[in-house]
Amino acid sequence: MKSASVSWRIVLVRPRNPLNIGAAARAMANFGFRDLMVVAPHDPVWQETRSAVGAEDVVKSARAVDELLEAIGDASLVIGTTSGSRRTLDRELIPLQELPAWLAAKGSKRARAALLFGSEKHGLSNEHLSHCHALVRIPTESNCPSMNLGQAVAVCCYELARANIVAARPPSSRVFLSDPANIHSLVHLFDRVVRVLDQVGYLKPKSRAATLVKLRRVLLDLGLTNNDVRIVGGILAQIEWKIGMDNSE
Amino acid sequence: MKSASVSWRIVLVRPRNPLNIGAAARAMANFGFRDLMVVAPHDPVWQETRSAVGAEDVVKSARAVDELLEAIGDASLVIGTTSGSRRTLDRELIPLQELPAWLAAKGSKRARAALLFGSEKHGLSNEHLSHCHALVRIPTESNCPSMNLGQAVAVCCYELARANIVAARPPSSRVFLSDPANIHSLVHLFDRVVRVLDQVGYLKPKSRAATLVKLRRVLLDLGLTNNDVRIVGGILAQIEWKIGMDNSE
Repeated sequence: MKSASVSWRIVLVRPRNPLNIGAAARAMANFGFRDLMVVAPHDPVWQETRSAVGAEDVVKSARAVDELLEAIGDASLVIGTTSGSRRTLDRELIPLQELPAWLAAKGSKRARAALLFGSEKHGLSNEHLSHCHALVRIPTESNCPSMNLGQAVAVCCYELARANIVAARPPSSRVFLSDPANIHSLVHLFDRVVRVLDQVGYLKPKSRAATLVKLRRVLLDLGLTNNDVRIVGGILAQIEWKIGMDNSE
Repeated sequence: MKSASVSWRIVLVRPRNPLNIGAAARAMANFGFRDLMVVAPHDPVWQETRSAVGAEDVVKSARAVDELLEAIGDASLVIGTTSGSRRTLDRELIPLQELPAWLAAKGSKRARAALLFGSEKHGLSNEHLSHCHALVRIPTESNCPSMNLGQAVAVCCYELARANIVAARPPSSRVFLSDPANIHSLVHLFDRVVRVLDQVGYLKPKSRAATLVKLRRVLLDLGLTNNDVRIVGGILAQIEWKIGMDNSE
């Protein structure tokens, strides 16, 4: 398995039940995962999260943030989980049991990857899903597709550990030109693109939001490297200059 | 995989927390298991077990019995689960991920098999273990080996369902959301990009040729689909219009 250096972060988005955060942390500890982030937990969920047995370290080092981007900004690969029971964006849908092979085929090296779980009630929103490179579906029965959050985390951690793709250590912080660009720099690039598109009149008020979701998906699918981002940034700078935009940033 | 005809019963021995029985039932329903038996639940655990979401049928048809033998009497194969952290009887210890292959090698046909889970606190006793043909160990970390009961059931059900899925279906053929763009349309797109870059002053005479070679390589590496080409074409048209280029082609 070539993806041995993938370092996983588990991200719980708007969990409602503190027991589930504790359960997720415990499953992570069971299978050797350490990096837990919680996005906008419903109050007072976060405060009530107690150290689950054996998972004290995971809970103690877990971080709560307000926005999804704060949790995935430094990741170069974002995978959302879905029960697959409703229609979603046309992201590639990977059965969980094929995720390790999918990662190996991608040849992700030195990647920091984030695995997202939505709220118990609503799962991940389309906005959340638009930040995902691909979706993973746990192969549940069609008449009972929706899993308990803590159990879903357990099953996913088991599958990743099973394939021996859990990295013991976080990836080296050295950034290579040919490394996949992280979400933070892609968001920055995307914001610049949007400003240019607004300026040249590409975005129409009525379809603006839908177009942006579509474009973000296209940008993610390109799999830009740091080098690509640098090149596109240079091109954007010239276009901004030509059309009289302030690009003094 | 020959184990498709094995019929599994999940047996919880002396569970203490009614939430865990409900959680076990839900995980079973998620992965298509229906046969749940509970041995000597601590009072009033059994009465408090509420129907977990989507697992009403499993809970309703579950049976509580006083003695383990009542739960496994009609089974031809009994497998116990263990965290493997203490010395047990000299039963064969099978890593969970190898259980399907182990079953297939045994050639168990039309078998009724029982998978036993001990209490949250003490696991299965030596007396319980003495009824097992073999033990299964979930491959947890040695510093945090003990799983939450509901999560352990979920992971085991997932592995058993996974084996059937993997056995029943050939590897999924990759689905392309859109066909890759052909070279002709990429060349056409590249020519338009180059004209825009000339117009906005990105290409310098001295480095022009080298830059174009680099950019073409970047464009190829992106693996654009026909859909991507269409979108980028639309964006280019607006930029061409804004900077006063003739794009009447």
